[in-house]
Amino acid sequence: IRSSIGRNILCSRCISTLHSIFPKHENFAIRHNGPSKEQQEQMLKAIGVKDTEDMINQTIPKQIRLGKDLDLEDTVCENEILDRLNLIAKQNRCDWRSFIGMGYYNCSVPRTIVRNMLENPGWSTPYTPYQPELAQGRLESLINYQTMVVDMTEGLDIANASLLDEATAAAEAVSLCFRHNNRRKFYVDEKINPQALEVVRTRAQLIGVEIFVENIERMDFSCRDFSGVLIQYPNTEGRVFDFSHVIEDAHTHGSLVACSTDLLALALLKSPGELGCDVALGSSQRFGVPLNYGGPHAAFFAVRNDLKRLMPGRVVGVTRDAHGKKVYRLALQTREQHIRRAKATSNICTAQALLANMSAMFAVYHGPEGIKHLANRVHNAALLLAHGIHKAGHYLVHSDFFDTIMVHMTSGVHDIYRRSGEKKINLRIYNGCKIGVALDETVVEHDLDDLLYVFGCEQTAAELAAELGGKLEGHLSESPLRRKTDFLTHPIFHKYRSETNIVRYMKKLENKDVSLVHSMIPLGSCTMKLNATAEMEPISWREFANIHPFVPIDQARGYQELFKELERDLCEITGYDSICFQPNSGAQGEFTGLAAIRAYHKSIGENQRSVCLIPTSAHGTNPASAQMCGMKVVPVKVDKSGSVDLLDLQKLAHKYAANLSAIMLTYPSTNGVFEEGIRETCDMIHELGGQVYVDGANMNAQVGLCRPGDYGSDVSHLNLHKTFCIPHGGGGPGMGPIGVKKHLVPFLPTHPVVPPPGSLVSDARPLGVVSAAPWGSACILPISWTYIKLMGAKGLREASEIAILNANYMAKRLEGHYNILYTGTNGFVAHEFIIDVRGFKATSNVEAVDIAKRLQDYGFHAPTMSWPVTNTLMIEPTESEDKEELDRFCDALISIRKEIKDIEDGKVDKEINMLKMAPHTLESVSADNWQQPYTRKQAAFPLPYLKPDDKMWPSTGRIDDIYGDKNLFCTCPPMEAYEEEEE
Amino acid sequence: IRSSIGRNILCSRCISTLHSIFPKHENFAIRHNGPSKEQQEQMLKAIGVKDTEDMINQTIPKQIRLGKDLDLEDTVCENEILDRLNLIAKQNRCDWRSFIGMGYYNCSVPRTIVRNMLENPGWSTPYTPYQPELAQGRLESLINYQTMVVDMTEGLDIANASLLDEATAAAEAVSLCFRHNNRRKFYVDEKINPQALEVVRTRAQLIGVEIFVENIERMDFSCRDFSGVLIQYPNTEGRVFDFSHVIEDAHTHGSLVACSTDLLALALLKSPGELGCDVALGSSQRFGVPLNYGGPHAAFFAVRNDLKRLMPGRVVGVTRDAHGKKVYRLALQTREQHIRRAKATSNICTAQALLANMSAMFAVYHGPEGIKHLANRVHNAALLLAHGIHKAGHYLVHSDFFDTIMVHMTSGVHDIYRRSGEKKINLRIYNGCKIGVALDETVVEHDLDDLLYVFGCEQTAAELAAELGGKLEGHLSESPLRRKTDFLTHPIFHKYRSETNIVRYMKKLENKDVSLVHSMIPLGSCTMKLNATAEMEPISWREFANIHPFVPIDQARGYQELFKELERDLCEITGYDSICFQPNSGAQGEFTGLAAIRAYHKSIGENQRSVCLIPTSAHGTNPASAQMCGMKVVPVKVDKSGSVDLLDLQKLAHKYAANLSAIMLTYPSTNGVFEEGIRETCDMIHELGGQVYVDGANMNAQVGLCRPGDYGSDVSHLNLHKTFCIPHGGGGPGMGPIGVKKHLVPFLPTHPVVPPPGSLVSDARPLGVVSAAPWGSACILPISWTYIKLMGAKGLREASEIAILNANYMAKRLEGHYNILYTGTNGFVAHEFIIDVRGFKATSNVEAVDIAKRLQDYGFHAPTMSWPVTNTLMIEPTESEDKEELDRFCDALISIRKEIKDIEDGKVDKEINMLKMAPHTLESVSADNWQQPYTRKQAAFPLPYLKPDDKMWPSTGRIDDIYGDKNLFCTCPPMEAYEEEEE
Repeated sequence: IRSSIGRNILCSRCISTLHSIFPKHENFAIRHNGPSKEQQEQMLKAIGVKDTEDMINQTIPKQIRLGKDLDLEDTVCENEILDRLNLIAKQNRCDWRSFIGMGYYNCSVPRTIVRNMLENPGWSTPYTPYQPELAQGRLESLINYQTMVVDMTEGLDIANASLLDEATAAAEAVSLCFRHNNRRKFYVDEKINPQALEVVRTRAQLIGVEIFVENIERMDFSCRDFSGVLIQYPNTEGRVFDFSHVIEDAHTHGSLVACSTDLLALALLKSPGELGCDVALGSSQRFGVPLNYGGPHAAFFAVRNDLKRLMPGRVVGVTRDAHGKKVYRLALQTREQHIRRAKATSNICTAQALLANMSAMFAVYHGPEGIKHLANRVHNAALLLAHGIHKAGHYLVHSDFFDTIMVHMTSGVHDIYRRSGEKKINLRIYNGCKIGVALDETVVEHDLDDLLYVFGCEQTAAELAAELGGKLEGHLSESPLRRKTDFLTHPIFHKYRSETNIVRYMKKLENKDVSLVHSMIPLGSCTMKLNATAEMEPISWREFANIHPFVPIDQARGYQELFKELERDLCEITGYDSICFQPNSGAQGEFTGLAAIRAYHKSIGENQRSVCLIPTSAHGTNPASAQMCGMKVVPVKVDKSGSVDLLDLQKLAHKYAANLSAIMLTYPSTNGVFEEGIRETCDMIHELGGQVYVDGANMNAQVGLCRPGDYGSDVSHLNLHKTFCIPHGGGGPGMGPIGVKKHLVPFLPTHPVVPPPGSLVSDARPLGVVSAAPWGSACILPISWTYIKLMGAKGLREASEIAILNANYMAKRLEGHYNILYTGTNGFVAHEFIIDVRGFKATSNVEAVDIAKRLQDYGFHAPTMSWPVTNTLMIEPTESEDKEELDRFCDALISIRKEIKDIEDGKVDKEINMLKMAPHTLESVSADNWQQPYTRKQAAFPLPYLKPDDKMWPSTGRIDDIYGDKNLFCTCPPMEAYEEEEE
Repeated sequence: IRSSIGRNILCSRCISTLHSIFPKHENFAIRHNGPSKEQQEQMLKAIGVKDTEDMINQTIPKQIRLGKDLDLEDTVCENEILDRLNLIAKQNRCDWRSFIGMGYYNCSVPRTIVRNMLENPGWSTPYTPYQPELAQGRLESLINYQTMVVDMTEGLDIANASLLDEATAAAEAVSLCFRHNNRRKFYVDEKINPQALEVVRTRAQLIGVEIFVENIERMDFSCRDFSGVLIQYPNTEGRVFDFSHVIEDAHTHGSLVACSTDLLALALLKSPGELGCDVALGSSQRFGVPLNYGGPHAAFFAVRNDLKRLMPGRVVGVTRDAHGKKVYRLALQTREQHIRRAKATSNICTAQALLANMSAMFAVYHGPEGIKHLANRVHNAALLLAHGIHKAGHYLVHSDFFDTIMVHMTSGVHDIYRRSGEKKINLRIYNGCKIGVALDETVVEHDLDDLLYVFGCEQTAAELAAELGGKLEGHLSESPLRRKTDFLTHPIFHKYRSETNIVRYMKKLENKDVSLVHSMIPLGSCTMKLNATAEMEPISWREFANIHPFVPIDQARGYQELFKELERDLCEITGYDSICFQPNSGAQGEFTGLAAIRAYHKSIGENQRSVCLIPTSAHGTNPASAQMCGMKVVPVKVDKSGSVDLLDLQKLAHKYAANLSAIMLTYPSTNGVFEEGIRETCDMIHELGGQVYVDGANMNAQVGLCRPGDYGSDVSHLNLHKTFCIPHGGGGPGMGPIGVKKHLVPFLPTHPVVPPPGSLVSDARPLGVVSAAPWGSACILPISWTYIKLMGAKGLREASEIAILNANYMAKRLEGHYNILYTGTNGFVAHEFIIDVRGFKATSNVEAVDIAKRLQDYGFHAPTMSWPVTNTLMIEPTESEDKEELDRFCDALISIRKEIKDIEDGKVDKEINMLKMAPHTLESVSADNWQQPYTRKQAAFPLPYLKPDDKMWPSTGRIDDIYGDKNLFCTCPPMEAYEEEEE
């Protein structure tokens, strides 16, 4: 329009002049980073360095420093970036309707649950409930979830608190069967969802289990060499059928039966448990969670009682507290942080707590009659539609179905495709003349009419209904497979039908839990940083939330553009060449990265390479993931300084040189130190033909300062829920994409339904499929995209620097009071550090757990406890906390140290003291009776910053883990339990 | 496409058959209405009626029953209706950029404030803070607001907690001046915003004040007959100028000076207080509130100390509680519920608390340096733009400006309009060749470039900047009018720069306040019902939030359609012929309705009619509104049964027949009774030539059951924030559209900038303008629209029935314990009732306030206290509460009655007892020292439903009102105040 000749020349000078008088609207980094400039100065002074650069020089080895700014876009303020993202989002065509099914259904998510849970930082920002006294709210909700699953799958005894998705849950079922009977063959029903089949194949192959895909009527268990069978019910084609004879046959020959199923269908159908299955699993997405272009959603998993110790994932159980009150906590915790390293066979760590909670609340809100209403409604709609399609002359492949119909089109195929396009309707396409239609609770009359039109039926739904006189043939209520048992009978599923009541229930639960809206949660290795609203908002935009993962890719251009931009930025940040978004948790990323290494070695004829070196200080998931890749885990010692013992490493690397597959390192180390020899270590491994996996858990100390891809790593997963601002959700979702160097790119995962473009290039040799959805939990990627765009190169580097500064400041303040376990060469720590409390046991009978519980009285969530070193506390403040909060936390720890001193000095009893009695509940402190040898004030308000009008109280006394382990109970306790208590 | 011959005939039978097998997805009414069917049955039985119909028959006089279903659309579920509303919303063209100004500016609203305040029911659903012990959170925030206003307007001593909008605030300033010196002439600067001018004119005319619109240089105060002058600074054309000589002149002659101003401009400009003004006012919209197509936003109002008792609206003040702690409360409360009836001259009741809180939090988040940054940035942008426009050959009408430029186009006018259309830019159009451009904080380089292009400037902003060498001429920092004083110096404006910190601050405040997320708030006459998320969501959609009220009407088609549909539905519900959405509070609606009556009478030559009959039981705002219309208020007695004394009414009506203008009735009465003679009363008034105004406050008992328009009313306002689900916002926004019968339609308000279509028809004789924006607080109308669509005719009627059922059930449960003051003919109450506690003073020294405070210990917000009858409590449960909650509340009141009995029986001291000491704080109950003659448990946990882990605590002891009144202090207390306390 206007000439722009000469413009570009002027440009840079002009713009900088313009910026001097017309600066940016706002620098988001000052919102994200906690400490003000003055506070930063004070802290730098306190730790005895000249400036930030000086501190970083003394912390990060010079030879690996990045030495330049990251090449990222200029930043704009939050409303501007959301405007831009909005334009991207609008390229997603949510004006199309999808009736594709395959484990993903449209759902009318109650808006009150969206706003008061998903969009509420009180629910989205808590950590995993390892401190149950501060987490009773979501523990109660998760036990509602477990109860709901056990009820719907009727006949199974125990359910976990969610897994990642249906496909990985199916793979976990295969592993469980294998662990149970050690047989190396496994049957899979040929009619399961294709993505589940491929994930099962990928995972089974790596642990040496052979998958036989078979028609269920042709399965033969008589040789007793099949570990089990996985059947889908209703199957992927929508068929409902009785497979109890298969179960009987399998059981007769010592095989287990796992069933992938659909919660809504089970409202009308005989349950897997009643049929005799040993395991039931599936997605609970259609219970109150949006499609999200594939995730996150929660998967459920239930087993017979005798299999419970083999069940993967977290389980919430009932126990009692110090006052005998019924309370909740994570049961069977050995599977958790303390994951059994080399012995582990599942690496499940992150669950999908936030989504499981949404599903649980959906069940609480609807109750059994509501769920039945929805099920009947969709079933009737399917019957009516099927009738019309049949009348239009097409052939229904299965006559028994719940909500999904498979149609063999007998004529006018071309017209049907044309009309579905005209009406903007996506159907499942099996092949040229077979098509699937999956209905769901959101279907309305207009949808049915459009579908009838698409299939060439001349009548409307209303006309068909009238013609049938309102009588539908083939209704499941007349089938022998109909459900006869009740479900959701617990009172909790009957009390909250009005929005007023459900809102109050959600608020009551929320207010019991500590989250980032209350105080810092300084969990070492978990990076509990700010999850800004601007980052969170887009995930509930309809353009991101309401898209089926298997729509044609040109209906999801917005997502594709977002992936491309985020990949570019993450590559720049890490130094890798490509990013794969399929793994939907950090541990999933580990598994995928190692599987890529295995595939790479195989491709160059070195399939024998299967040894994985892992330092003993590594995250527990590391060895577990290696095991899942069929690797032999060889532990590497850690020296006194907390670093990898280089001599031991060298020795082992050479010892296993011929079979060396990989080393898994965490950097900076899980002990909170930037080890000096990282580059040399990588070089050595490479020289021996091995690959380097750097665990991305501690990426938060590196962004903008150094890059794994530069100092020798071949692959890393990135915990987007740590460094890149996806909230922890009270125990999930996580998201663990992997970054890889060029030589590993061809091996990245593919997908059987929507193969990512990268897996279609000519040299691609994908390692398989690792998640149900092509891009994992796609819907939470806008969070990380927005974070990076808001922060820019400078902001991200500052964040890393301040994370390191905050940690060093705290270490400095605490060092006179506690022993700081490991520091780097110059005495500095990275972004986290460990305080050693092992000595107190002898001097005062105090253990790490006592300090953790006592911190609750000071209003704080404990740091990571007893990991990576037993009886220590690992503190990671992150950059989002300001100096005042750090000081309060340090004051609390220092004050606790004095309380310990009083025990050491004999002033206070070793058993009856404020640490052993901690935490102190409001109930005990306000009781008429007070019999402790210390005052109520000392118990509950030991420091002046603690004010009665805003103190966060633990809602129970100290949890009795032993009682809970002995009396494992993992569904809602009967109401009498509470009544007894009140008496 | 397909033939539809014969379809319609089949239609109704087909559809009902279809619905029998394929019912609606969900009936929202079961979510909105609290009690389940079983609970309803139990309650009907308890009150001794056969069924709902029986109850209604005994409650509402037969002759006024509606006798048919309302003709409203069929309902669909919440996600479907939001899909539909989304399509409507998209017709609003928020892809256009508006640089119109005139009191409305684009604002980059911090997303965290949107999510954690506006979208958070913890902030949106509390009531006005009349119970300060349960409202310290928002009281603190409102005092931050007042402090911010006092700081920005520097030199004025006291600010209120917000008014409705700039224009009505200007009208209030005129009234204040008039009240101050009783002079009946008033100057208005000719350069104030046109909407403010028209509101001032409308309001002044009715109270008999004559407005003289004049150039400020030509004002002459020497005759000492001018009450005051209103000046806008910067003025509507953007001009910044020193008017201290006018102030001096005015003051010399006993006139007051009010200044309408702009908070952001004041960051750079000498303040109105420093210039010597007596009053400053304006909109605080651009401090953190979206444009909202005109509202809601908060207006501010500050005065010199000696005018404080004349200041309209609520004021938050500091006082102390029973323990001597510094606390907040509404000061000068006489202006409130106890509004001084016939003596009142302002009817201000609702404020804009929620929006004022957003603005306050905006100031807290940005602090002085942030506000200065924004101000400088926009000012520089304006200077740069002005330079470019000047270079393009146009004439700048004013050389001194802040962010708004007035351009006299010297050539290419047509091209400029064309290019502004091409770039989708709205400018302010004065006339053919004069145009205004108002910049704001959201402006970016690209906007400047586009604006330069529009005005035909050949250079970009960057090129201009470079050319100027970064030096801008005319910067306010070099003007004698530059600001020299600091602002926002209080620590509260310096502590919360990080999002982490501001989120915790908002949460800390939120958690101190009782809202509907905790428990019922049974405020008689206030209808605290569910504000569903589905209703609330649309108001933060960008298509509703980001539109300037003065865009061409075809850019706001979505809004226009919404208005039309809502008007249609409200007419159907009320029986009126037209709705006017301009009044933005209930009291504003009263004023507008009465003004319409006055205009009507005038039009038929009966201007002498100015007597307004108002029962003594009426809302305090009724007489105040009548006064504002220049009416003579004649009180009508209320008989022993609580009804209007018909004899007295008859007598007075006839006595004043010749001058009778109107009667204002509340129906059902404020005493909670459906009076039998309502139709006869209306008839009588009509016969005497008067008009009937029915106050819509109690519409919640009528919807679907009877209609004011049917039984004889001519006009009503509708409190959309009561009956139609707009949340109370902790003290606003309200919304008070009026419904009128046909003969009043021509007199409905117009607007000087965007006249509503109805005001343009040929017979229109608008009464004037009553609010700043053409459709008042347009942005909250989607709430009521959604509510009506979700409920439908059946659901709405059920809601009314259950509201009545709930009230009668409570009355029944309480009647053995308390005296229920008024009931209808058959012994039933309407949707609310009064319990009489007057007798307790004599027997036990207990007053209503003691019961109210003691209820806090039971976890409840008190009912309406001492209104409409002194020393009584008026309870309105609404339909949203279920039986369990009603029972808990009744249990609490019955338990309190027993506590009173113990005093009566002499078992307990008359001064030292649980009622007089109430409320009991967590601090006192957990203190080491407990010296009360009752136990901690009795104090804080008197009934079993109160649990320590979810009890809502009052955050202060009982407020000392007398101390606060004696020591009026209405800004943030100095930090030392808190330190002293801690010592």
